[in-house]
Amino acid sequence: MWYKSAGNDNDVVISTRLRLARNFKGLNFPGKMSDEEADSVIEKVKNAVVNSGTAISDSFKYIDLRKASNIQKLFFLEEHLISSEMIEGKGPRGVLTGYDDKISIMINEEDHIRMQCILGGYDLYGAYDIINKIDNIIEEQIDYAFSEKYGYLTKCPTNVGTGMRASVMLHLPGLSITGNISNIVAAVNKLGITVRGLYGEGSQAKAYIYQVSNQVTLGISEEDTLSKLKDVVDMLIEKEREVCKTLYENNLLAFKDKIARAYGVLSNAYVMSSEEFMNLIPYARMGVNMHIIDNIDSIMLNTLLVELQPAHVAMQADVDSDLRRDEKRAEILRERLKGRV
Amino acid sequence: MWYKSAGNDNDVVISTRLRLARNFKGLNFPGKMSDEEADSVIEKVKNAVVNSGTAISDSFKYIDLRKASNIQKLFFLEEHLISSEMIEGKGPRGVLTGYDDKISIMINEEDHIRMQCILGGYDLYGAYDIINKIDNIIEEQIDYAFSEKYGYLTKCPTNVGTGMRASVMLHLPGLSITGNISNIVAAVNKLGITVRGLYGEGSQAKAYIYQVSNQVTLGISEEDTLSKLKDVVDMLIEKEREVCKTLYENNLLAFKDKIARAYGVLSNAYVMSSEEFMNLIPYARMGVNMHIIDNIDSIMLNTLLVELQPAHVAMQADVDSDLRRDEKRAEILRERLKGRV
Repeated sequence: MWYKSAGNDNDVVISTRLRLARNFKGLNFPGKMSDEEADSVIEKVKNAVVNSGTAISDSFKYIDLRKASNIQKLFFLEEHLISSEMIEGKGPRGVLTGYDDKISIMINEEDHIRMQCILGGYDLYGAYDIINKIDNIIEEQIDYAFSEKYGYLTKCPTNVGTGMRASVMLHLPGLSITGNISNIVAAVNKLGITVRGLYGEGSQAKAYIYQVSNQVTLGISEEDTLSKLKDVVDMLIEKEREVCKTLYENNLLAFKDKIARAYGVLSNAYVMSSEEFMNLIPYARMGVNMHIIDNIDSIMLNTLLVELQPAHVAMQADVDSDLRRDEKRAEILRERLKGRV
Repeated sequence: MWYKSAGNDNDVVISTRLRLARNFKGLNFPGKMSDEEADSVIEKVKNAVVNSGTAISDSFKYIDLRKASNIQKLFFLEEHLISSEMIEGKGPRGVLTGYDDKISIMINEEDHIRMQCILGGYDLYGAYDIINKIDNIIEEQIDYAFSEKYGYLTKCPTNVGTGMRASVMLHLPGLSITGNISNIVAAVNKLGITVRGLYGEGSQAKAYIYQVSNQVTLGISEEDTLSKLKDVVDMLIEKEREVCKTLYENNLLAFKDKIARAYGVLSNAYVMSSEEFMNLIPYARMGVNMHIIDNIDSIMLNTLLVELQPAHVAMQADVDSDLRRDEKRAEILRERLKGRV
């Protein structure tokens, strides 16, 4: 699990994700295949990974999404192991997870293969190295749909080329509170970089968390994509730190108060909705960054961010009603956030 | 200090106060005396108490209110050692405090002598016994204005007779939340019993705290006054407990949550206004009563109720601005409310 290590620049960066889209040569895209073809895609990818004889191959396990319950599928979604498309999808499809769930290989999603690596903190090149190795392992067994002119071919034209989506999840309370974020998003968009809310396309930024990723995959190399994204993320980290420093210096007491109250509620409540949790957690993170909260760290914050999502809580508690889930969420918080600010 | 012992029925009753109004025979009431006469009243009362040779006499000290600063006077008011009339008043006036500040004898307030005893918890007869002893001690030296027909004579006709005001301070969140309190107040008023908010006449009930006292002093004995008040207070205690039990049973999770959140904010905040404190403290008291909060007790609650009032905080911190005072209030709370729910 990516969230078990905080990684670099974890005051601002939550995680780094690298995703490659690949397709089989000479085969229809998912949705236009027969079930037999889809099954054979699954078998071939599984065999390519599991029988690769590499150090990593033993760590993989396959999850058949046709057999998974709704709550399990939501759980995998919350872990970022699958996309929401895979929940809705029909036909044979599944996911291979490995390397302590830091790697997931979705089979028969939009493309035949969507492989991704998520790491805690800021580590674009680390994630790229890992996913590149997986890509090579699979390519040893499977012929990819590839055009000399365009690069890797994908179902959606927006992925043709590198088939790569690199994204960095950032916590930007300073830029959000001051309103600077909208200008930055507009400027960054012109550079071919997308800034989105926590749960991908179209969603609002929850808890001041933004996902920053490359827009363009065609006519650009992987190296240039990473370097361009890195420049933008470096800039965002620096600006966020600057703004926070000024904000804190000018309103220290108000921030300490807001942070401590948020922590007081998080660590004491008996009922906690997902929405309220998402409203309060940024203050806990600011508190950790400002060394006002010293009994938890970034790893705990990221863990809570994942594990207090609805399906995670429901899986733990075997609860069905919203109230019981909100009660369980509060119970977990009280256990985890022992002590006071 | 009354608030250093919790006393009887302290889940509902905060304190019991017994006050007697007395005047010198053949002397104008305060406000119509010369300064020389006022000074002589002070000397005579001081001598009567301090030189009484009783076990209690050594404990008394005299505070000259003409020499007290505004903040000191507010401090005494918040301790219930003086009335607000004594702050505004002019001319020689002061207060004798003794018996660990559970007794205060105001000199040249509305009447020449206003002696009172405050005890923690529910103890009407205990308070009456003590104040009766003080009354006897003073009466040995001073001739009171007394009419065979009416009883003790006082400046305001509403005190003529026994000159006694017995009052019990009650915490009634259950009756308040359910709205039952208004019917009860109306019914109780017809019995000659007054129900007021925390700071006496005309003030709204703060923090669900009510002062219940006898209205009538004329044509009724002290014993009958106490017994009538006791009946009403007994009834209120019983009803409050009943209502709370039902409230808690029907909404346990909601109450636990509200209580725990209030405690989380009280014990963590860095800025706490007097108003917010008064809004939150009833939940802490419910938490103590419900055994949800077990690291503080009624004594701590009563102590906070007194010591977090504006002048008390200002005296401790030597602060002048509202913000600094609210900061100091939060600091005291964080120290006192260690640990979590």
